[in-house]
Amino acid sequence: MDVISVIRTKRDKGELSPEQIDWVIDAYTRGEVADEQMSALAMAILLNGMNRVEIARWTAAMINSGERMNFAQLSRPTADKHSTGGVGDKITLPLAPIVAACGAAVPQLSGRGLGHTGGTLDKLESIPGWRALLSNEEMLDVLDSTGAVICAAGDGLAPADKKLYALRDVTGTVEAIPLIASSIMSKKIAEGTGSLVLDVKVGSGAFMKNIEDARELASTMVGLGTDHGVRTVALLTDMSTPLGLTAGNALEVRESVEVLAGGGPSDVVELTLALAREMLDAAGLKDADPAKALADGSAMDVWRRMIAAQGGDPDAALPVAREQHVVHASESGVLTTLDAYAVGVAAWRLGAGRARKEDQVQAGAGIELHAKPGDRVTAGQRLMTLHTDTPEKFEYALEALNGGVFTSPEGTEFTPNPIVLGRIA
Amino acid sequence: MDVISVIRTKRDKGELSPEQIDWVIDAYTRGEVADEQMSALAMAILLNGMNRVEIARWTAAMINSGERMNFAQLSRPTADKHSTGGVGDKITLPLAPIVAACGAAVPQLSGRGLGHTGGTLDKLESIPGWRALLSNEEMLDVLDSTGAVICAAGDGLAPADKKLYALRDVTGTVEAIPLIASSIMSKKIAEGTGSLVLDVKVGSGAFMKNIEDARELASTMVGLGTDHGVRTVALLTDMSTPLGLTAGNALEVRESVEVLAGGGPSDVVELTLALAREMLDAAGLKDADPAKALADGSAMDVWRRMIAAQGGDPDAALPVAREQHVVHASESGVLTTLDAYAVGVAAWRLGAGRARKEDQVQAGAGIELHAKPGDRVTAGQRLMTLHTDTPEKFEYALEALNGGVFTSPEGTEFTPNPIVLGRIA
Repeated sequence: MDVISVIRTKRDKGELSPEQIDWVIDAYTRGEVADEQMSALAMAILLNGMNRVEIARWTAAMINSGERMNFAQLSRPTADKHSTGGVGDKITLPLAPIVAACGAAVPQLSGRGLGHTGGTLDKLESIPGWRALLSNEEMLDVLDSTGAVICAAGDGLAPADKKLYALRDVTGTVEAIPLIASSIMSKKIAEGTGSLVLDVKVGSGAFMKNIEDARELASTMVGLGTDHGVRTVALLTDMSTPLGLTAGNALEVRESVEVLAGGGPSDVVELTLALAREMLDAAGLKDADPAKALADGSAMDVWRRMIAAQGGDPDAALPVAREQHVVHASESGVLTTLDAYAVGVAAWRLGAGRARKEDQVQAGAGIELHAKPGDRVTAGQRLMTLHTDTPEKFEYALEALNGGVFTSPEGTEFTPNPIVLGRIA
Repeated sequence: MDVISVIRTKRDKGELSPEQIDWVIDAYTRGEVADEQMSALAMAILLNGMNRVEIARWTAAMINSGERMNFAQLSRPTADKHSTGGVGDKITLPLAPIVAACGAAVPQLSGRGLGHTGGTLDKLESIPGWRALLSNEEMLDVLDSTGAVICAAGDGLAPADKKLYALRDVTGTVEAIPLIASSIMSKKIAEGTGSLVLDVKVGSGAFMKNIEDARELASTMVGLGTDHGVRTVALLTDMSTPLGLTAGNALEVRESVEVLAGGGPSDVVELTLALAREMLDAAGLKDADPAKALADGSAMDVWRRMIAAQGGDPDAALPVAREQHVVHASESGVLTTLDAYAVGVAAWRLGAGRARKEDQVQAGAGIELHAKPGDRVTAGQRLMTLHTDTPEKFEYALEALNGGVFTSPEGTEFTPNPIVLGRIA
């Protein structure tokens, strides 16, 4: 087997054989296939595609590059969720405790943010004392004792994917549906969950800008999960505007706790409950009622125990950014555009996100929204508040918002997008 | 300027701007753009192409990555030739002395063989004492005193191309016409010749397997040369069967000397004279008669002086391989196929070529042909003789010939391909 013949096969629009795929993933993980060879192959895959058989084998080869976890010893059925990432997407924080309170075990191996979308671990790290890094034993202990755990994925899971993802990030080969699908699913399948709900975001703030691409990605991932014996469902959900009223680490934790306390923005509550129902269904807990777990405080109980089990103080005050800047409405009317990408980039520039993997994030930085699309606004009212420890960045953040906020004349008819745009199972 | 936006432009079928091209070639030469980024870009170029404006700029950027030579101080007009490479292609050896004997200065900066095609420097190095590596001063001295020089290109010419060529070789991105054309032409233009004749080979033993690809490559290169003020002409020539009766280093030197002595195979003589006429025309020496330079011994004189000026002994015995194996015709009839690629691979396996850049070649190894397509053969007569210092390779070489030699029944009509298939100016 030699790498040039593998590259040529895909370059010339051929189908990679199972042997070619197994060999190239293994040889790349071992360092026998060089980065420059894998990036040429990734570009050929991006431009010429892979069929379902190739994607399935590619995913299996990445799973086989590392260890597999096993939750068979738990007494509860496992249910996992993965979001493709958006702006203000704090759903994992209230969702995991709700689903755990309903009787499932929820192992959420999560990531950090890069670019304009936030990362679940970055958000939770704004809670004083909370630790993202657990050993496999600690993880199972937290999961077993509280019903849920949110922590960093260990280095042993799908190492081929880790290496390939870092390479794609610097070679313009991220945007390939076969590679995105196999990257997500190799980690999720290696984690060993019995069921999985995918939240595939669509819109300006998401990776997938249009519904057709999102549908293709979702179908590919559902097929991969199903083929590997994981009950998998995908919801296509709107990401044209931020979820909820906050984008930023501590700001989103605060909003998540509001949801767990029975309040919070209606879109966050709606999506959280929709995903909870899917997870419970997929885990075989069809009679569980996630709304009740919110109402009776049992979800909040799980949250507090889960945060405490990882060293966090659920009662501690959350960090607040040193400086604030309020953006006011310049005219009266109906707010018709509050672009998710513009808000995400602005929050990132304020310090909520990172440009490079090694950057630090600011716990308090981000954006609070005081209005959402469809709301009536009056000239001079507060539209949003920007938070940062580095006020020299206000101007840079405001630039990102330019063109992303639009008010139409009073009386304009406006129907906001529904949160859930579709379901694929 | 950042490399990912450059890669994305070409990935998404856009046109690279002059600024993007200048920047990416310079940044790659300096090491700021990494190999894995350039290989992704090369694959995107291979699959999505470049237009004439992009190719011209890409070539200019590679020229500007290094030094340019200048032959303006010579009293003679310069004429250069480049072949895209074939099996038994020893044409440079008799051609350079013939054209020099007719009054042009012929600076032939040549390369080594890789894979099934031989390299001019490897061939000349079979002459005892001959040195391929000259300083720029030595090169000009030999050129000035003898009229011709064949030597290795210095490291200072188009360093971007050297780096990119080595990368393409290991990433399956060699076969892209824009990259092939710019690679060849950047070196030739940086060499500073006033006129250039391209021998673009077509057929199984060539890089271009069909006439359409060869024509596109030739037109692209003629356009690039013309745009840079170099009078450039291309001949499309047949490479379905080896040129002449030898493939191998010392074997080809011997055949070249036969041509210079007024003998040699008719196809080698025909192509050498056709290219000589084009070079002399392009150099403005329209009245020169290359056939006369062969007949009156003046070309042989130049050859002897040129070899001696680079330390070689033109009278020394050439190396002979330690072992020979004769292949006989198994049936009588008309030899209709003697496949260039099969013979090239067999010669390579016998030790005439190298698989990796760092390999040594055997001076005596190769293949002597005793018949050519169109010849009548009788069962049991000698078809070819294989030469090698490593007789354990005979079987491996014979495997390569399998299916490459075909005899049709007595009386079969057969018209060999003409040597020159087309001309582009």
